[in-house]
Amino acid sequence: MSESSANTATLSALRAALGAERVLTDPATLDLYASDDGPGHCRPCAVLFPRGHDEVVALARIAHDRRLPLVARGAGSGNVGGALPTSGSAVVSFECMQRILEFAPADRLMRVEAGAITAEIDRLARGRGLFYPPDPGSAPYCRIGGNLAMNAAGPRALKYGGTRDYVLGLRAVAGDGRALMSGCRTTKGVVGYDLTRLLVGSEGTLALITEATLRLLPAPAAVGTLRVCYDGSASACDAVQRVMDQPIIPCALEFMDAHALAAIQRAGGATDLPTATHAMLMVEADGEAEQVADQLQALQQVLRGPGLVEIKQALAAEEVARLWRARRALSGAVKALAPLKINEDIVVPISRLAALTAGIEALARRHELPIVSFGHAGNGNLHVNIMVHPETSGELARAQACLQSLFETVLELGGTLSGEHGIGAAKRAYVPLEIPAETLALMRAIKREFDPRGILNPGKMFPDA
Amino acid sequence: MSESSANTATLSALRAALGAERVLTDPATLDLYASDDGPGHCRPCAVLFPRGHDEVVALARIAHDRRLPLVARGAGSGNVGGALPTSGSAVVSFECMQRILEFAPADRLMRVEAGAITAEIDRLARGRGLFYPPDPGSAPYCRIGGNLAMNAAGPRALKYGGTRDYVLGLRAVAGDGRALMSGCRTTKGVVGYDLTRLLVGSEGTLALITEATLRLLPAPAAVGTLRVCYDGSASACDAVQRVMDQPIIPCALEFMDAHALAAIQRAGGATDLPTATHAMLMVEADGEAEQVADQLQALQQVLRGPGLVEIKQALAAEEVARLWRARRALSGAVKALAPLKINEDIVVPISRLAALTAGIEALARRHELPIVSFGHAGNGNLHVNIMVHPETSGELARAQACLQSLFETVLELGGTLSGEHGIGAAKRAYVPLEIPAETLALMRAIKREFDPRGILNPGKMFPDA
Repeated sequence: MSESSANTATLSALRAALGAERVLTDPATLDLYASDDGPGHCRPCAVLFPRGHDEVVALARIAHDRRLPLVARGAGSGNVGGALPTSGSAVVSFECMQRILEFAPADRLMRVEAGAITAEIDRLARGRGLFYPPDPGSAPYCRIGGNLAMNAAGPRALKYGGTRDYVLGLRAVAGDGRALMSGCRTTKGVVGYDLTRLLVGSEGTLALITEATLRLLPAPAAVGTLRVCYDGSASACDAVQRVMDQPIIPCALEFMDAHALAAIQRAGGATDLPTATHAMLMVEADGEAEQVADQLQALQQVLRGPGLVEIKQALAAEEVARLWRARRALSGAVKALAPLKINEDIVVPISRLAALTAGIEALARRHELPIVSFGHAGNGNLHVNIMVHPETSGELARAQACLQSLFETVLELGGTLSGEHGIGAAKRAYVPLEIPAETLALMRAIKREFDPRGILNPGKMFPDA
Repeated sequence: MSESSANTATLSALRAALGAERVLTDPATLDLYASDDGPGHCRPCAVLFPRGHDEVVALARIAHDRRLPLVARGAGSGNVGGALPTSGSAVVSFECMQRILEFAPADRLMRVEAGAITAEIDRLARGRGLFYPPDPGSAPYCRIGGNLAMNAAGPRALKYGGTRDYVLGLRAVAGDGRALMSGCRTTKGVVGYDLTRLLVGSEGTLALITEATLRLLPAPAAVGTLRVCYDGSASACDAVQRVMDQPIIPCALEFMDAHALAAIQRAGGATDLPTATHAMLMVEADGEAEQVADQLQALQQVLRGPGLVEIKQALAAEEVARLWRARRALSGAVKALAPLKINEDIVVPISRLAALTAGIEALARRHELPIVSFGHAGNGNLHVNIMVHPETSGELARAQACLQSLFETVLELGGTLSGEHGIGAAKRAYVPLEIPAETLALMRAIKREFDPRGILNPGKMFPDA
């Protein structure tokens, strides 16, 4: 929708509130904000760049009055179209709200604007012996507001939990411009309903999060990594279950299946794998240096078992960095395998992980499609990528059938449809498979209380009513 | 309200649904359920004992249809009148719903009914090398439903977090009898709004929680305790801040001021304290045995400082148990000091703890009232008890003024009014001091969506509208 077809009066009101240079409608900008890292493409009618909480209040009031849909956006690094504009919507970019408002090391907290970059928060914290545990793959460039909206996580979630476990309080703006304040500055607090965690993971549908008070932890002094090769996914999953059945909690327990390893190798990584390797685990422990050594020793014991090909301990720092770069690059490397990647983010209880990978292999065979799996095995959270050539006749339909079967398998195994990527635009049709109708109706009712005119991120998270 | 004045038709409908022996209205029973461990006394019109989720659905439908207020109750061990009946209300006791529905050690989870006893959950978990971290003082007899309703915590919250951090999912019944299901069986999950954490801490005002899926952790192999004596609260608080400014996270960091120590000693405990002791810390570390020894060593270093009187390490198990019994008995021991104890549960950021204890001492002097303080110093969470002789002219009024000043001090220091006890009936008048009016209005709106006729725990958590 171009400015000529957008409501000129609405844009004028926004320009008056934010300044003309903060309300962009030129085609190049609109194209830049027409998609995120998920599927879909739709030009917004404008991109707004507020410079603080009060400007977000002002723009939300205008949008509410004039029924202008607002799509909150951090770095646009999400995988599910959570920041995908809908027709006639304005994108609210938090790129100009990236201030660190307060860093109080003695209270182990940092108060930041929603546009602060996640890795920057962590970097600052480490300067004072602290750290910010959630570590999504996009941390070097993603913004905390997006992490909050999606309840982002990452490998360290196994030991430390996800974004929602590190938020003490929020400032936010509801869909009618009401300024909201939730939580507190302390690690305990039970006054009022927990709006903080209601907003975390609400994907921009309840309120625009403007500021967050984040909880920090003491940074571990050392980290150690094991690279463990197995003859196949079944052996690797059995090892994961053994790790989770003993007391040491690794700070990462990452799984890669044979297809994922092939993608890494095609991209030039992991060149020294023994040829018998058809699945791999990366296992990390952190803590005091001595303690890390003890933990890795004990973990090695339980990682040994049927199907083990090789354990490499005491990797050089450069080798660990290379492994993690390869692991982090997987999402991109997998894209090279086929024109379309249907990227899922399922979770099952640990005891069902082997059943899940076996089920995925069966689905790949039945639907004649390559499926690449890797992810945070210690949480039972796998990123499952169905590789599709949409121009090949019937392949897209097979992929859709395969996806439906995958979700049914996951739910039969007691799992959930998404562990960290969220629902966004991409998966909302499947939500009723998991959430009972009455509970879903209640969620919609809560949404109406925050956003009476439904202007916040319409067409996301919920199926069409 | 007696049966004659209660609505006989309502009681008949409840008896038809639950069985006559599950709907008690005899005066002795009504008296037994007329109060919890907080202030206030009010006979309900009936006490209901459902035997499962479906019976809770049935009773809620009847109550909704007939506008019968329902007050959920676990063990009645709460401190703020959260389970205090209001006139004409029925108490829903979860005492007959204490089944362990499922224990899956490999998935580190336990699914329980709301009436399961907290310590029993922990005991079962430890039988398989796991544990349930939240440890309210009432754990030996309180019920998980009450812990969930109040977001209960305890000493271990410093290292492990509170109840809300160990709930994977809930079954619950809304105020109109709708059955709700939230969360999942996995440690990660982001599908839909986080109703789980919205219900946790909602004090029975949004829904009746019937079942919970709890997350368990590997049990630490060993625990070690330090008893650290200081010359006064200021020195002890400075030491707390030093502890929180280094990387080791103790699993308990408890503070007792001189009045609390006197109460313990009057009750026959802590008889061997050096006479110069006017404040004490109990510091615990857990983990592998060797690691505990290292941690206590390092903690001793930072606990030494100005005002230190004595550190006792390597206490015998019996001595540690005695100390904890004394600490746990404090709440009761303090009651013996005056006919009325106004029991608060405030929290401030760690960096303001010394300012808080100094402020409390100033308030005690100004209002001429003894104030006994102790609690979870590592979270900045103190239980502050204003001791009152209400029959002494003017003392109750002084206590009320003192309380108001205390809350103002806490909020000025960036704190919150309650860390773990909740609001209930006792503190609701003070909630607007902390929560802005617009946010409070939104909470009330959410309540209406769950409980359109306002029958769930009326007169709790919120000030009168």
